[in-house]
Amino acid sequence: MQAVPRGVFAPVLTPFNANDGAPDRASFLNHCRWLVANGAGLALFGTNSEAASLSVGERIELTDALIDSGVDASKLMPGTGACSITDAVTLTRHALSHQVPGVLVIPPFFFKGIGDDGLFAYYSELIERVGDERLSVYLYHIPQFSHAPISLGLIERLLKRYPKSIAGAKDSSGNWDNTKAMIDNFASQGFAVFPASESFLSRALPLGAAGCISATVNMNPAGIRALYEGWSTPQGPALQAQADRVRDIFQATAMIPAMKGVLANVSGLPSWAIVRPPLTQMEDVDTAILMQNLSSAGWSMPAYAGVGSTAKTTDGRVAA
Amino acid sequence: MQAVPRGVFAPVLTPFNANDGAPDRASFLNHCRWLVANGAGLALFGTNSEAASLSVGERIELTDALIDSGVDASKLMPGTGACSITDAVTLTRHALSHQVPGVLVIPPFFFKGIGDDGLFAYYSELIERVGDERLSVYLYHIPQFSHAPISLGLIERLLKRYPKSIAGAKDSSGNWDNTKAMIDNFASQGFAVFPASESFLSRALPLGAAGCISATVNMNPAGIRALYEGWSTPQGPALQAQADRVRDIFQATAMIPAMKGVLANVSGLPSWAIVRPPLTQMEDVDTAILMQNLSSAGWSMPAYAGVGSTAKTTDGRVAA
Repeated sequence: MQAVPRGVFAPVLTPFNANDGAPDRASFLNHCRWLVANGAGLALFGTNSEAASLSVGERIELTDALIDSGVDASKLMPGTGACSITDAVTLTRHALSHQVPGVLVIPPFFFKGIGDDGLFAYYSELIERVGDERLSVYLYHIPQFSHAPISLGLIERLLKRYPKSIAGAKDSSGNWDNTKAMIDNFASQGFAVFPASESFLSRALPLGAAGCISATVNMNPAGIRALYEGWSTPQGPALQAQADRVRDIFQATAMIPAMKGVLANVSGLPSWAIVRPPLTQMEDVDTAILMQNLSSAGWSMPAYAGVGSTAKTTDGRVAA
Repeated sequence: MQAVPRGVFAPVLTPFNANDGAPDRASFLNHCRWLVANGAGLALFGTNSEAASLSVGERIELTDALIDSGVDASKLMPGTGACSITDAVTLTRHALSHQVPGVLVIPPFFFKGIGDDGLFAYYSELIERVGDERLSVYLYHIPQFSHAPISLGLIERLLKRYPKSIAGAKDSSGNWDNTKAMIDNFASQGFAVFPASESFLSRALPLGAAGCISATVNMNPAGIRALYEGWSTPQGPALQAQADRVRDIFQATAMIPAMKGVLANVSGLPSWAIVRPPLTQMEDVDTAILMQNLSSAGWSMPAYAGVGSTAKTTDGRVAA
């Protein structure tokens, strides 16, 4: 098992151009830089990135652009899973070519009723076809979308067969008992468990969780990072409570359109609100209510620098 | 509304090489030619083709190879849907470049709980970005896999907005009431409804269905074609009963591995049994039982010519 990344990761939202619907590279880079400057790692191409709505080429181009812009590859944990093993191999090899410390791999999600044997075959074929000692796979457990749960039994089989390549998991089930079972069973072997919500951090970190990979890190990276650093200090409960307040407001919404609506609002770039179908954009009136709810909770986007290309400094680093 | 294809279509099984896992082009072409020679159209890249397990590039290459081999594009109804609108546009444009008469478009299937608005947005964006008057879209209703049902209300909205581009639907729900409602509501407008099982043909054709797109056309193209042609003749009930006997045997299995196991058996090419993960290959012992059940039902693959490159004639046409 290789050394594994720990900390707070954002499944980075993907902005799109209003004119042609292509990914808006400048806004993407600015958002990534702002996240890194606020203490977050970049779990590119997760659910909240609308990764399934992107082509393989778009994922590769955005990754290349990010590296070219000077963001350190050590901050990245790109999602490289796909329904097609061909695509997963292509994306994983590409990520490794940039020396990323790990990749987050969703299981194939078209066929339903797939059991551990089919998922074991998928991850095995991926690891063997990529054939790279640097590969660290994080298993993506999100049964409400994938309908292909990463069971404890599957993790055990994969760890036994590929101890060097299987590095951890993201648990997006929202089921604390499952997160705890993953930690209790496998963390002592160096298996890094990331719950998908910061609301679990104060419970998960003392047990040995590695951090979190959470949608709302896109909104509140500094607050969640502070919680990650300070959970065991006297300020811990207050940090958890404040992070939870923000989380709860977004969790009551359709989160992807809601977070993009907020970014459109705070960045002054209306195109940030665009989502790809089948998602539908948040109505302006609903975004206004959301902004008001956030304000009532005493919260605003901390020093948001992701305001389009004007935020870039001359050396391409974050302006914040 | 353009003239629409009618008849019996196979969602063509996709063979893979044993050595590198890539699509086995020669076996694919032979199987396609055999299907066409036995009266079937080619609904490439459907569920039974493991389309979701193929890359965009693999789908394009197989289509090109098929056209290059001399199969008439008028026989094709390729699946060009994808979770990513970028991929769907790419695949649809490519299919139209070959003058195919229609494309079968599955809705995006990653996000769950998507309603008519999101699917309307997806099909609208596809039609408008492709921007080609020749486009005939067949909507793919397979809620047990896509979790994104094509409702009657959605069809009505799409037909009203895009009367020239929305040409029909495949109903894979297996729900006769739904198939009947699609026909009753829309067939009179020229909307072509294809149930996904030949077991509905004798009921659906008199109401105005356009044919069927069925997995087991891969096994029994001539028998299902005979039923399509002869349902209203005195032989109709016997043709339906014989087709049902074959269908029922496969329907009791994991159909994709089972059909591929049969092809491995009758072609003498063991690699036909290969499936991509997350599907798992049928065990030889189970294939043997399946072959025995088929034999007991008085059935064998009719003059199967798909036996690898040795079956090719010098002009590239089907050897049968």
